[in-house]
Amino acid sequence: MSVTAPQGFEAAGVAAGLKSTGKPDVAVVVNRGPRKVGAAVFTSNRAKANPILWSQEVVKDGTVEAVVLNSGGANCFTGSFGFQTSHLTAEKAAELLGISAGDVVVCSTGLIGTGDETFRRHVLDGVEAGVRALSVDGGPSAAEAIMTTDTVAKTAVVSRDGWTIGGMAKGAGMLAPGLATMLVVITTDADLDADEADAALRRATGTTFDRLDSDGCMSTNDQVTLLANGASGIRPDPEAFAAALAQLSGELAKKLQQDAEGASHDITIEVRGAASEDEAVEVGRSVARNNLFKAAIFGNDPNWGRVLAAIGTTSAQFDPYDVDVWMNGVRVCSAGGPDRPREDVDLSPRATDLVIDLKVGTATATILTNDLTHDYVHENSAYSS
Amino acid sequence: MSVTAPQGFEAAGVAAGLKSTGKPDVAVVVNRGPRKVGAAVFTSNRAKANPILWSQEVVKDGTVEAVVLNSGGANCFTGSFGFQTSHLTAEKAAELLGISAGDVVVCSTGLIGTGDETFRRHVLDGVEAGVRALSVDGGPSAAEAIMTTDTVAKTAVVSRDGWTIGGMAKGAGMLAPGLATMLVVITTDADLDADEADAALRRATGTTFDRLDSDGCMSTNDQVTLLANGASGIRPDPEAFAAALAQLSGELAKKLQQDAEGASHDITIEVRGAASEDEAVEVGRSVARNNLFKAAIFGNDPNWGRVLAAIGTTSAQFDPYDVDVWMNGVRVCSAGGPDRPREDVDLSPRATDLVIDLKVGTATATILTNDLTHDYVHENSAYSS
Repeated sequence: MSVTAPQGFEAAGVAAGLKSTGKPDVAVVVNRGPRKVGAAVFTSNRAKANPILWSQEVVKDGTVEAVVLNSGGANCFTGSFGFQTSHLTAEKAAELLGISAGDVVVCSTGLIGTGDETFRRHVLDGVEAGVRALSVDGGPSAAEAIMTTDTVAKTAVVSRDGWTIGGMAKGAGMLAPGLATMLVVITTDADLDADEADAALRRATGTTFDRLDSDGCMSTNDQVTLLANGASGIRPDPEAFAAALAQLSGELAKKLQQDAEGASHDITIEVRGAASEDEAVEVGRSVARNNLFKAAIFGNDPNWGRVLAAIGTTSAQFDPYDVDVWMNGVRVCSAGGPDRPREDVDLSPRATDLVIDLKVGTATATILTNDLTHDYVHENSAYSS
Repeated sequence: MSVTAPQGFEAAGVAAGLKSTGKPDVAVVVNRGPRKVGAAVFTSNRAKANPILWSQEVVKDGTVEAVVLNSGGANCFTGSFGFQTSHLTAEKAAELLGISAGDVVVCSTGLIGTGDETFRRHVLDGVEAGVRALSVDGGPSAAEAIMTTDTVAKTAVVSRDGWTIGGMAKGAGMLAPGLATMLVVITTDADLDADEADAALRRATGTTFDRLDSDGCMSTNDQVTLLANGASGIRPDPEAFAAALAQLSGELAKKLQQDAEGASHDITIEVRGAASEDEAVEVGRSVARNNLFKAAIFGNDPNWGRVLAAIGTTSAQFDPYDVDVWMNGVRVCSAGGPDRPREDVDLSPRATDLVIDLKVGTATATILTNDLTHDYVHENSAYSS
């Protein structure tokens, strides 16, 4: 049920002509209250798209009433005309909904550099059709409208005692956040203050979306938005809410990983025994970004030497001769030397587990990534995106 | 003529059974004097192979008489047995040449984790055969013996008034140094002191090998060694020598780029208008490591948005709305927005020029990289290396 699973939210997905295929490409999500709490995290890429620049201002006061999202164009590096388009998009939605433009978040995804007059006209038409189509059952169609090279719509719902969190996500390439990630909208009917929503969102993204690193490429348009309306009438325990939000975010991150462009393996890199969580993340990310390791996994080759070579490029504390590496449960490297033979490792399943024990401390972190495949190269060379 | 182009050097390449193909796999380069000056730079990967650990000690006193190199096994992460193998290799060469083992540099390349007793026996046999085969015409065969997935042997010679520099290099994947790179041996009959040799080598590698970033993966075995014997009897002007060495290093780096695994484009990324040279390098390297940009070039797609997205992940000074980008001479992006249409750019030639103007200063840097292709994925997934 996506973003309309919690009480008091309506959504819609409509086809506005942005996608040449004629598929849905504009989504609208509206919070019907009673509260209009909003929080968001954004890409840390310094080249930020116009909808990011707009939305950063919108969320500052902790109030968000609606989110308009489009696929079929990133409206990034489109200058002041592009910023005006994001502004006009919010104004159009606000006018039709009888709310303030300053409470409307805008998200765009697609080819960078796309954002001309045709793009603007299609988006504004989409807002009009989307607002008309709003419904409490509209979550799934909204999730479909934000897809780009995604092969499936990605939604998740977590329910607790009397309150619910719903979410939708898109993302298939450029999955390497720093602070935020992809386009994600999360709704809840739990009763939260703006600072509670912000804190819970940052905490949840920090260990979920932020640790998904499919291809090392950071997007200009990533945004995760949380809307909370208190419609359930229940103020959850902050810890319970944070845990539920982290669970939902983790589920969506996993779905993004499983649908990453061209991937044939979903690789979970667990780093153990690190001196600090930051160092565990640094090590996991370095391995996740090593093309030679990623290509080896595509070839079902348990090439642990490439893992150690990647660890060696980090600043993390470790002794190259006291590192253990497991692949799918088989210890292929112990104390920095060969252990079990490569023939013992079965890398044919799509789900791949890599465990690295640095043996210098007790900190851990898990990074999600994918292999480097012919299909990844094909999708990202044959089509502009 | 490779490393035997200068006077007073002998070399050989022999087949010692390390390569299953039976091709040459051990090379020996000997400096016959009169002077035995040596300098080297090494990989900055903290996971260093045993031959690196050995050779770092050898070059400390500025004296090197011989270099033994093998392909067919990296002798990395092979523990104390592997270190002993590097030591025994130097001792064997020293005994046969009547010199000190402490003046013999050892270099290995091939699969990480390879370095068992069979490997040791083959290398020691290779040293014996190699020393027997030493000749003043042996440079080309030595260059052939260090090839791994290289498709051509890489050599270069630069001659000036009465003195000569010769070099050989191997490298086809894992080309992303930090301080040193690949296996390279450079010889000269110019008369240099050890500190002059060291300074000239660091200066030359800093702007050549160090700025080749084929696939973002840093090797555990990279080493560039310079041997100088003064056999020409000429003490060159330090500036003239540094310039000649940089020219030769640049030629070898270009050959490494042109033979990078699976590449279909050799991309020269020139960053202009940076606040500092370090920032220009950071920007160039960030673009060079962006898989989406690299895949786009493979697909002959002038996707400048991916260039700007990569710049946005750096800490370099720039205004996203005041950046210009040229591809093969066509300005595709000006002031952070679309300029000439993508149809105007012809990316079909193998040599590809990307120019980025950050417009904040006067510093420049050039990074050499390659595209991300199906063949790269194939070579690095189908074979362990």
